[in-house]
Amino acid sequence: VTLSLDQYRERFDRVMNLALTNNQVPDRLQDAMRYSALSNGKRVRALLVYAAGFAVNAPIERLDAVACALECIHSYSLIHDDLPAMDNDDLRRGQATNHIQFDEATAILAGDALLTLAFELINAPNSQLTDAQCRLISHKLAIGAGQIGMVGGQTLDILATAQLSSPEQLKDMHLRKTGALINAAVSCGALCAENLNADVLKRLSDFADNIGLAFQVIDDVLDVESNTEQLGKRSKADLALQKSTYPKVLGLEASKQLAQTLYQDAIASIDGIGDNTQHLTELATLVVTRKH
Amino acid sequence: VTLSLDQYRERFDRVMNLALTNNQVPDRLQDAMRYSALSNGKRVRALLVYAAGFAVNAPIERLDAVACALECIHSYSLIHDDLPAMDNDDLRRGQATNHIQFDEATAILAGDALLTLAFELINAPNSQLTDAQCRLISHKLAIGAGQIGMVGGQTLDILATAQLSSPEQLKDMHLRKTGALINAAVSCGALCAENLNADVLKRLSDFADNIGLAFQVIDDVLDVESNTEQLGKRSKADLALQKSTYPKVLGLEASKQLAQTLYQDAIASIDGIGDNTQHLTELATLVVTRKH
Repeated sequence: VTLSLDQYRERFDRVMNLALTNNQVPDRLQDAMRYSALSNGKRVRALLVYAAGFAVNAPIERLDAVACALECIHSYSLIHDDLPAMDNDDLRRGQATNHIQFDEATAILAGDALLTLAFELINAPNSQLTDAQCRLISHKLAIGAGQIGMVGGQTLDILATAQLSSPEQLKDMHLRKTGALINAAVSCGALCAENLNADVLKRLSDFADNIGLAFQVIDDVLDVESNTEQLGKRSKADLALQKSTYPKVLGLEASKQLAQTLYQDAIASIDGIGDNTQHLTELATLVVTRKH
Repeated sequence: VTLSLDQYRERFDRVMNLALTNNQVPDRLQDAMRYSALSNGKRVRALLVYAAGFAVNAPIERLDAVACALECIHSYSLIHDDLPAMDNDDLRRGQATNHIQFDEATAILAGDALLTLAFELINAPNSQLTDAQCRLISHKLAIGAGQIGMVGGQTLDILATAQLSSPEQLKDMHLRKTGALINAAVSCGALCAENLNADVLKRLSDFADNIGLAFQVIDDVLDVESNTEQLGKRSKADLALQKSTYPKVLGLEASKQLAQTLYQDAIASIDGIGDNTQHLTELATLVVTRKH
């Protein structure tokens, strides 16, 4: 049977809830982790894991731990990015940010614990992955999430505040900050298959880079065009922080056009890898047409 | 040839420096990571990896990545613990803490990047470990460092501030906060051997729990008895934060006696596992006789 994206999402919600249930964890820490990681996100990264895995016939049981790991890392990054010392946001996914709901110390620790949990889940004896897959996936995820990927991108973002970057600098920053984890989601989902073809992995990786960048361009556009209620987080936040954004560097219309081009390049990347790319296409469409 | 602890330490300094050299990392992030991770620490965790590996005849080349991973995680935990929202320390290892030397945002990100790097190093294609070892070690390390281990312990520590805990609560907190990563260091070092005997692993784990707790008892004693110059960090910090400590709960002399008992139990734990336990014994002695 072929699951719909909604059905994948239901499955994900169930396994993620289980992954965040452990009676050995101090209550306050677990409450803070669950507050953010089980909140009403779009789950783009988890769904990309399932969609990429489906495209290459990976067993669905193997995708669960990887999907949870990706969302753990995404959640941790939001918690830390929202901290007063970083973007200082008080609203996220329509609810108070973690450090507002709990406190700064708890928010820092909840983020640290979620990041660590990602690697615990993948390498757990019951994760259904082979040892070789655990290693490849752990490595890919660490590269995407770490110093040259997401954390590196967030560093560049903070350094770039209040200075207008060139389109090239902006692209480099966003490919790291958002693109690296999106790429890890797609690549790690694909790595759950047996005998993955290197060319197919490359095409999926290109797909991910294109929609990762499109995701961020749309994020910048929405920050300008939407209001706080629609976004579930403060709109005009980039402007307030004097951040470099696509609308600022390219203009609003050119930014929207860029997102369309990236979308088309993404779809072209996975042309010919097989008949099971429908979920990837659907997610790419969702990324560029989303309103929040 | 049998290396001395000093020679292991020289080897570690060399591989750690290499592990923290990557020209794709934004300069400011790498500077902050290197500032803390290459500072003049005691390297107890790295040395425990080598000492435990030596005790079970693990090839030294396999221990390098694991030793670096342990110290990456230890460094990250110190950076985050020192943050204003946590213990708010300005001095560590005789130098300004990371967020004082850089800024809070950079310190948070440097910690995040070091934690992630730990899993990158272990699972790297060139880490010399087998796939099965990567999985076991990644899992053990994530358990020790995460929600039920170190991060869980730090949460309990923060919650316990300003309330006198029972000796049992204090032990639980410290077994997590300090003991879990010490245990991970010893266990992961041992897991680098081929065909590790389960009983030997259990004995090494008991050794680690005993010296982990002894380490923290001595830490509490030193906070009372030493001055800031000797410690390289602010003395009397526990008192200032009204933290629950062994001297406060048990008294100073009983705390020193407890450290001795734990030391003897540690030595007894590894009696009979073979002839190569000298480095473990030396490190246990160092833990209870240290003056900073």
